[in-house]
Amino acid sequence: MTDTDEVRLARVALGCLAEPGNRELGVLVRQVGPVDALDRLLKGYVSERLHDTARLRLADEPDAHRLAGSLVDSADRLGARIVTPEDDEWPPQLDDLAHLSRAADGRAVERDTDPPQCLWVRGHPALDAVFDRSVAVVGARAASNYGTYVATELAHGLAERDWTVVSGGAFGIDAAAHRAALAAGGLTAAVLACGVDRPYPLGHANLFDRIGEAGLLISEWPLGAAPHRLRFLIRNRVIAALTRGTVVVEAAGRSGARQTLGRARALGRAAMAVPGPVTSAMSVGCHAELREVGTRLVNNYREVLEEVGRIGDDLAPMPRGLDRPHDTLDPIAAQLLDAVPPRRASSAEEIAATAGVSGRDARRTLPSLVAAGFVVEHDNGYRLAPRPS
Amino acid sequence: MTDTDEVRLARVALGCLAEPGNRELGVLVRQVGPVDALDRLLKGYVSERLHDTARLRLADEPDAHRLAGSLVDSADRLGARIVTPEDDEWPPQLDDLAHLSRAADGRAVERDTDPPQCLWVRGHPALDAVFDRSVAVVGARAASNYGTYVATELAHGLAERDWTVVSGGAFGIDAAAHRAALAAGGLTAAVLACGVDRPYPLGHANLFDRIGEAGLLISEWPLGAAPHRLRFLIRNRVIAALTRGTVVVEAAGRSGARQTLGRARALGRAAMAVPGPVTSAMSVGCHAELREVGTRLVNNYREVLEEVGRIGDDLAPMPRGLDRPHDTLDPIAAQLLDAVPPRRASSAEEIAATAGVSGRDARRTLPSLVAAGFVVEHDNGYRLAPRPS
Repeated sequence: MTDTDEVRLARVALGCLAEPGNRELGVLVRQVGPVDALDRLLKGYVSERLHDTARLRLADEPDAHRLAGSLVDSADRLGARIVTPEDDEWPPQLDDLAHLSRAADGRAVERDTDPPQCLWVRGHPALDAVFDRSVAVVGARAASNYGTYVATELAHGLAERDWTVVSGGAFGIDAAAHRAALAAGGLTAAVLACGVDRPYPLGHANLFDRIGEAGLLISEWPLGAAPHRLRFLIRNRVIAALTRGTVVVEAAGRSGARQTLGRARALGRAAMAVPGPVTSAMSVGCHAELREVGTRLVNNYREVLEEVGRIGDDLAPMPRGLDRPHDTLDPIAAQLLDAVPPRRASSAEEIAATAGVSGRDARRTLPSLVAAGFVVEHDNGYRLAPRPS
Repeated sequence: MTDTDEVRLARVALGCLAEPGNRELGVLVRQVGPVDALDRLLKGYVSERLHDTARLRLADEPDAHRLAGSLVDSADRLGARIVTPEDDEWPPQLDDLAHLSRAADGRAVERDTDPPQCLWVRGHPALDAVFDRSVAVVGARAASNYGTYVATELAHGLAERDWTVVSGGAFGIDAAAHRAALAAGGLTAAVLACGVDRPYPLGHANLFDRIGEAGLLISEWPLGAAPHRLRFLIRNRVIAALTRGTVVVEAAGRSGARQTLGRARALGRAAMAVPGPVTSAMSVGCHAELREVGTRLVNNYREVLEEVGRIGDDLAPMPRGLDRPHDTLDPIAAQLLDAVPPRRASSAEEIAATAGVSGRDARRTLPSLVAAGFVVEHDNGYRLAPRPS
């Protein structure tokens, strides 16, 4: 076995023997490397908590290297691959997670936010290229028709402009985002909270197959791992870290999507939310986020690109309603035009008084408004020209 | 005539002879007082523009004092009153407008934002008391059913809590706000861009009568003044200055309500907007404002009160979805509970591994979760207790 293979197998073993994100293990690996870290873990030179977990996961197969080896073989048979930080395609932005530490409330999901030891991948494209231009589109499982529509529009627009749409593979907003990206012929990646051989939810088995063919299915958990509720929360930090920004399309007051958004904000990624009717329970979480500093309201994919795109590249146009022809007039002329009555004609002096300009300015400027077709002379005065309908 | 009467009549004359908000006139009045300012205006010791306007408005009645006197008489006959800065009930917050200066784009409506010289009032309550606790609720004339509903809910909630609802008397959002405040038995004030004897729009004649009886109709323009388009924009600064904050409920991309909101922000008042579907043209202006720094998203009247209310007084509850019973558990117990499987039982060690806690902690804590009814023992392991439906 080469040194490279040994490191790789140690990463796989570490990814199986501890719950992903474990900070103690991450620090140890950074200090002594994966091979020595695995050795210390197996010998119990770690906290009781970490050692208990590892021993339990070795209950059926006590040899950690054999366990890892058989998982690698299974991945080969499935056509899946394992990507570690030592590989060229490893997305370097995941390493930002080493510096992510949230409120110390004692919960592992807040404390243990370290980068994954390895990723299990179904799909062909190289990870680094796929995630360099990527946006997370996430939200409620119990999405409304409105939310589904907006997620579809967003993901379609992003995918058409060669941005990878990343989501969590769940019902509702996640599924709408994946499907729209596929429909646009773009790239999409589902980051799962279970083994990539184990579709969850079951109803998305076909969707996951399509994503695995045209895009990427990835997970920190080894093949066969079951989706526990906590794992969705652990997984969310990877969605936030992989992408340049996260958009929440719909979210109830209490929602995993809000946690992903919080992670994105803490990592310095663009944090975005789509507003909705204040009468909709599915927009309560979005609006709560938008009331916080650091989350940006987005109406469409152009505004998303404005947040995540390179400067000067993807800029959204200012929303300003329809231009009116007299937007091009100089200030005095525009002011006078606003003061010209629509029906009964007024004198230049009356119009000047209403507009707040001098009579001389009015007498000088009104004829040019007549010449430009905005105003007509009538009864020794001026009134607006009839509008073309 | 007493000195007081002379000052009062001069204010009325100045309010007629120049377009309200004229900065040159405002500065002059602050320098020499209303009586001398009127004298200088009549003698032409002012800019040509200001002098032209005054002369035009004296075309039918060349004596400014007679003109003002006859307007005062008309107001008496109508049951209207005139309030000047010399009166006790003058709302002092209007004087903040003397310091409001907007982008110098040359347009009078941006440049001339001075306080009114006087206000024409229909309605009994004293102005200072009415506007001390007041919020402006404004928005699109072409409001959607959604916007009308939200404006109604907001205004009703504010009026019920003894906040005056201020708006502009227009169709759509303005009318919904006035009507809801009246329905709640609260105070509402319409700030008009024409004489208070001249209902505009005509279809609101009955509404204005009701507001005049139960609340206030006020205007800077003398009786008989016509509503020009420019006057709505001039008027908006008064709505922003009178109130502690302005809420835009719906607004198209180009909208007078957005101008009012900008004034509120420039005056240091609370600037608020209600979100809506990104698919609605009537929310485009609200969302554009919410993308600017300084405008706060509000979902309901409680959040409006949080922005405008006194500290510690009117605070909105945090939106966080329904509380779950195990929100009260300590962190280790909550973590374990999240990791307990719903159907097939798991051992304490397996649950500990998933939760990321030590086996000892799991063995110590799981029995208390059983005792509390969250978890049941089963097959030498633990699974979630069935939920009460």
